[in-house]
Amino acid sequence: MSEDELKKCAEFAREMAAEAGTIMHKYSEMDQQVERKGDNSPVTIADKSINSLLIEKVKATFPDHGVLGEEESHETDRDVLWVCDPIDGTVSFILHSPHSMFSLALAIKGEVVLAVTYNPWTDELFEAQKGKGATKNSKPIHVSDRVWGDGALIVSTSDPIHKGYPTDTPEAMLKIRSEGNRLFHLAGCVFKGMMIAQGHADGYIFPYDTAHDIAAVKLIVEEAGGSVTNLAGEEQRYDRKINGAIVSHKGVHDQLREIAADYAYSGD
Amino acid sequence: MSEDELKKCAEFAREMAAEAGTIMHKYSEMDQQVERKGDNSPVTIADKSINSLLIEKVKATFPDHGVLGEEESHETDRDVLWVCDPIDGTVSFILHSPHSMFSLALAIKGEVVLAVTYNPWTDELFEAQKGKGATKNSKPIHVSDRVWGDGALIVSTSDPIHKGYPTDTPEAMLKIRSEGNRLFHLAGCVFKGMMIAQGHADGYIFPYDTAHDIAAVKLIVEEAGGSVTNLAGEEQRYDRKINGAIVSHKGVHDQLREIAADYAYSGD
Repeated sequence: MSEDELKKCAEFAREMAAEAGTIMHKYSEMDQQVERKGDNSPVTIADKSINSLLIEKVKATFPDHGVLGEEESHETDRDVLWVCDPIDGTVSFILHSPHSMFSLALAIKGEVVLAVTYNPWTDELFEAQKGKGATKNSKPIHVSDRVWGDGALIVSTSDPIHKGYPTDTPEAMLKIRSEGNRLFHLAGCVFKGMMIAQGHADGYIFPYDTAHDIAAVKLIVEEAGGSVTNLAGEEQRYDRKINGAIVSHKGVHDQLREIAADYAYSGD
Repeated sequence: MSEDELKKCAEFAREMAAEAGTIMHKYSEMDQQVERKGDNSPVTIADKSINSLLIEKVKATFPDHGVLGEEESHETDRDVLWVCDPIDGTVSFILHSPHSMFSLALAIKGEVVLAVTYNPWTDELFEAQKGKGATKNSKPIHVSDRVWGDGALIVSTSDPIHKGYPTDTPEAMLKIRSEGNRLFHLAGCVFKGMMIAQGHADGYIFPYDTAHDIAAVKLIVEEAGGSVTNLAGEEQRYDRKINGAIVSHKGVHDQLREIAADYAYSGD
């Protein structure tokens, strides 16, 4: 992809993030009424609305690109694919907890070359382009230089009792804490990824196969100096199902890979 | 207290919230460096700085009032007392998770008559005066009309495995979920209180004895139509140690009181 085309894509992604933020705010203000009906439709509407808008805009602006979205996709077999989670952190969105974020990545043959994520509640825009570093609101961000055993902060799901994440098995919790690290639970896969990209946290294991949750995180964390691999510690494509993700940096990546390996084999 | 004096206090509280927000932002930007030293000093500095500023300003503006602060107090035996948690949600503050808030209440002989809380990350200011309703950024807020069993949302600590809150015992979790409610874990006592005041969540049990965590929440939630009592379902003073708190509304208060009672007696 030419430098000019990439620049156009970056501008497009930034504009899309702003529009997604406007939609999230709009439905957020409406949801209290609809929550009373006992269904989650405002979330679905906000999610679908952002996802549809993206497809419509991609068709109009980049007719040869595809879209892999959480709610709806378009020509996913194309080489150039926009991978999008319209609202990451659905429960946070419903509850008005400011951890829900918009996430969009541009992948070429499965490799992410451009990414934006946006927190409309705190007005924080994260951006990265392959080889050019990562920023928050245009200022460079960097992962931490903490190492395993020196107060490294591992983040995990907000529902440790029921979700059974790799970092929440009794063995993993014991290992993390007894070896001199901290463990904190909070919602939002993309939010946690941005904590790591900014150096506020050190590592996170994502155990699912959905690329839209991780594609943008992958590039932003790596351009901030971190490492993102699948659960086996390998590179992977982000235009199809993934094998989970270890989102971290060199100070803790190997240890999280061990925890992920124990988790992966625990069913044997 | 005269209407004029109360008005002056409300203006004072609002200004104090804005200054606290400025201090929180200032130390938040600094903390990454200091976290590397392996201590929590920036938090302590931010906390202490807000607490000291409050005492200094109270002395200058209301020389016959006292201050009951989390970090430092001043003449706590006085009838008119400012009860303050300079930064509620310390871990969130360290981690830059936007759940940490400033909280300030004015209690007369233990009864809260005025309260403000402020989230500097989302710029949300909550205010209440006894008998005059509660607001967020000057717009009225109300608790939900959901009832127990109809998807009511109970909120609990971000560390359910280790903190052992009343809502996180196996019995309580089973009761909450099997009877048709939801349970969500997140940090921030004041943040959770404001979720309830806005109708985004329905109930929360606070098991500790620290008045500074609950004093402002008490008035804001009640002025939004909710109920806040101690763990036994009774009224209590907020100018000394408290017997926990049930922060909720009439749709779920009795059921949370039962859960709190089981918890209180579980050691027998």
